Amino acid sequence: MKIALFPGDGIGPEIMTEARRVLDALGLPGLVLFAGDVGGTAYRTHGHPLPPETLEMAKAADAVLFGAVGDPACDNLERHLRPEQAILGLRSQLGLFANLRPATMFPGLEDMSALRPEVASQIDLLIVRELNGDVYFGEKAMRVLDDGRRQGYDFMSYAEDEVRRIAHVAFRAAQGRRGKLCSVDKANVLETSQLWRDVVIETHAEYPDVELSHMYVDNAAMQLVRNPGQFDVVVTGNLFGDILSDQASMCVGSIGLLASAALGERQTEFGSFGMYEPIHGSAPDIAGQGKANPMAMILSLAMLLRHSLGLEAEAARIEAAVGKALQDGVTGADLGGSAGTTEVGDAVLARL
Amino acid sequence: MKIALFPGDGIGPEIMTEARRVLDALGLPGLVLFAGDVGGTAYRTHGHPLPPETLEMAKAADAVLFGAVGDPACDNLERHLRPEQAILGLRSQLGLFANLRPATMFPGLEDMSALRPEVASQIDLLIVRELNGDVYFGEKAMRVLDDGRRQGYDFMSYAEDEVRRIAHVAFRAAQGRRGKLCSVDKANVLETSQLWRDVVIETHAEYPDVELSHMYVDNAAMQLVRNPGQFDVVVTGNLFGDILSDQASMCVGSIGLLASAALGERQTEFGSFGMYEPIHGSAPDIAGQGKANPMAMILSLAMLLRHSLGLEAEAARIEAAVGKALQDGVTGADLGGSAGTTEVGDAVLARL
Ligand SMILES: CC(C)[C@H](C(=O)O)[C@@H](O)C(=O)O
Ligand SMILES: CC(C)[C@H](C(=O)O)[C@@H](O)C(=O)O
Repeated sequence: MKIALFPGDGIGPEIMTEARRVLDALGLPGLVLFAGDVGGTAYRTHGHPLPPETLEMAKAADAVLFGAVGDPACDNLERHLRPEQAILGLRSQLGLFANLRPATMFPGLEDMSALRPEVASQIDLLIVRELNGDVYFGEKAMRVLDDGRRQGYDFMSYAEDEVRRIAHVAFRAAQGRRGKLCSVDKANVLETSQLWRDVVIETHAEYPDVELSHMYVDNAAMQLVRNPGQFDVVVTGNLFGDILSDQASMCVGSIGLLASAALGERQTEFGSFGMYEPIHGSAPDIAGQGKANPMAMILSLAMLLRHSLGLEAEAARIEAAVGKALQDGVTGADLGGSAGTTEVGDAVLARL
Repeated sequence: MKIALFPGDGIGPEIMTEARRVLDALGLPGLVLFAGDVGGTAYRTHGHPLPPETLEMAKAADAVLFGAVGDPACDNLERHLRPEQAILGLRSQLGLFANLRPATMFPGLEDMSALRPEVASQIDLLIVRELNGDVYFGEKAMRVLDDGRRQGYDFMSYAEDEVRRIAHVAFRAAQGRRGKLCSVDKANVLETSQLWRDVVIETHAEYPDVELSHMYVDNAAMQLVRNPGQFDVVVTGNLFGDILSDQASMCVGSIGLLASAALGERQTEFGSFGMYEPIHGSAPDIAGQGKANPMAMILSLAMLLRHSLGLEAEAARIEAAVGKALQDGVTGADLGGSAGTTEVGDAVLARL
């Protein structure tokens, strides 16, 4: 069992340390760990946010645990050298097309959400975001038009197979949950969305037990505030998924609690190859201060154990320990509490 | 003073009737009203959601008051014949590039929001959405690739003059409010957004008194839930503006209260030519039942009087009357109340 650890920038290394302590505590036999550089950290030492050796390391592993990237010092670099390219490059070069972003209210944290407790307590949804297509990876450029004006452009598209494979992931996820799938698009304006909707409807034929609905993205953004409890599984494209999953995470109360998995087609000996990362970013403003909440990172490790290593029991143990720590009032600054990074790590370890 | 009234589909005609009663009650001298067909209604009588005579009527007026379009019976028509094309066609053919979408908490309604009252009560923001560009109006098609796969695509772009003119509108709006402008984009991924950001920064040089910040759209969707009170004016592109303005409207408690203006460069004798519409849709499920809340429509009329006819006092009178009605507990079904469409209209008229 080989796991590649990519701590990255900002708070990445600090929270990775806590995930690592949790992993060590499980005492898994035959585990091999590699560490690689990504993001601004990698740019400074290797001249690129995703050096070839890091990519090779990821390919050689059964799973990648990713901290966070993003570094204000790199803001003025050309886009292909910026830290975020590490995530985008790994997602596309490893064929990780299915992003699972669960958002569930933790018992006891209802008062932390900006939503009213009775609304927030209903949240138990999974956003399945497509991660290899859409306007993210289409042709894009800055150009000067014939009349001298500058123009920026990005080509948005989806082909039917790209939609079909993510639709399958979403329908299967719905089968394992409450049997409801809501597909979000903007088919009243975009052809990309019309194709999306057509293919999701076609794929539905194979999942008659799943209840399928469709929602325009503007309405979905509204419904996620009004009544997030109505959603079970939400499937959507790369761009809309980026927006809606961050919105959903805030409805839960803190982005510091939410983990994510990026999966592809490749199977390993133990499960699906995948990359796991907290939804939050590198938070440069609090980096190095021991203040960051490592829970999303630790919960990302749990997802890794479940999906890539087939270790469901261990995954559940970690999730239960985090849940208990929260219920016992162990809350970091993101939740208005005072527990530091190590302290949260200790609290989770003590409850494992 | 010529106003074109386009009631449209679903609840459009019912709520337009109430706005019309309010307009009549003002007793404005020299007012000429036209009525035109749009949406599914126009498709059924003229074979097109935006018949040429409707477009001509709009052009001949000083302002357009627009109800709502959208009709499930038209869902299977080709996209260019669907009701929504009426809005999109009017926006683009009339050059209405600046969409003003104010979201302000009405005193007394804090408990209606899904957000906690102390969070919701802080909302007082204006979203300035670009309305003539972006992925909405670029080339788009469904095609079959060489390898036989279906693909849907949409071309997203902004040219510098398109960004500059909306940036000016937003900076001026910020000057007239609390002096803060937040520009929302996805410049870490999109070239369209990078151009957007560059031009907004260039334009800022002319407004040194405005405090400018930038936010990625995923973070903005999060911050709108976490702490909407931090925003004064938000400027963004067509697609992100569609999503964020609907989200913001729900934070206020009901989409049934929010009005919008779409303005262009054309000046009339009395102000800017513009089109005014509620943010909500045609709500076919409750159409014809006298249940729809006409407040957003009435508040759209107020915006029309202010921006297109230079009648600030009358606009303020209407807004005050709606505010008073709400404070007196006159709330429609959208706010959990029992007042029907006419009843709400009566209540506003009684407080004019
Ligand atoms: C950093 C950025 C490129 C990335 C994205 O837009 O996908 C991030 O926001 C995310 O959601 O993982
Ligand atoms: C009906 C639709 C085309 C429209 C849009 O996307 O602009 C609507 O959602 C709006 O916001 O006015």
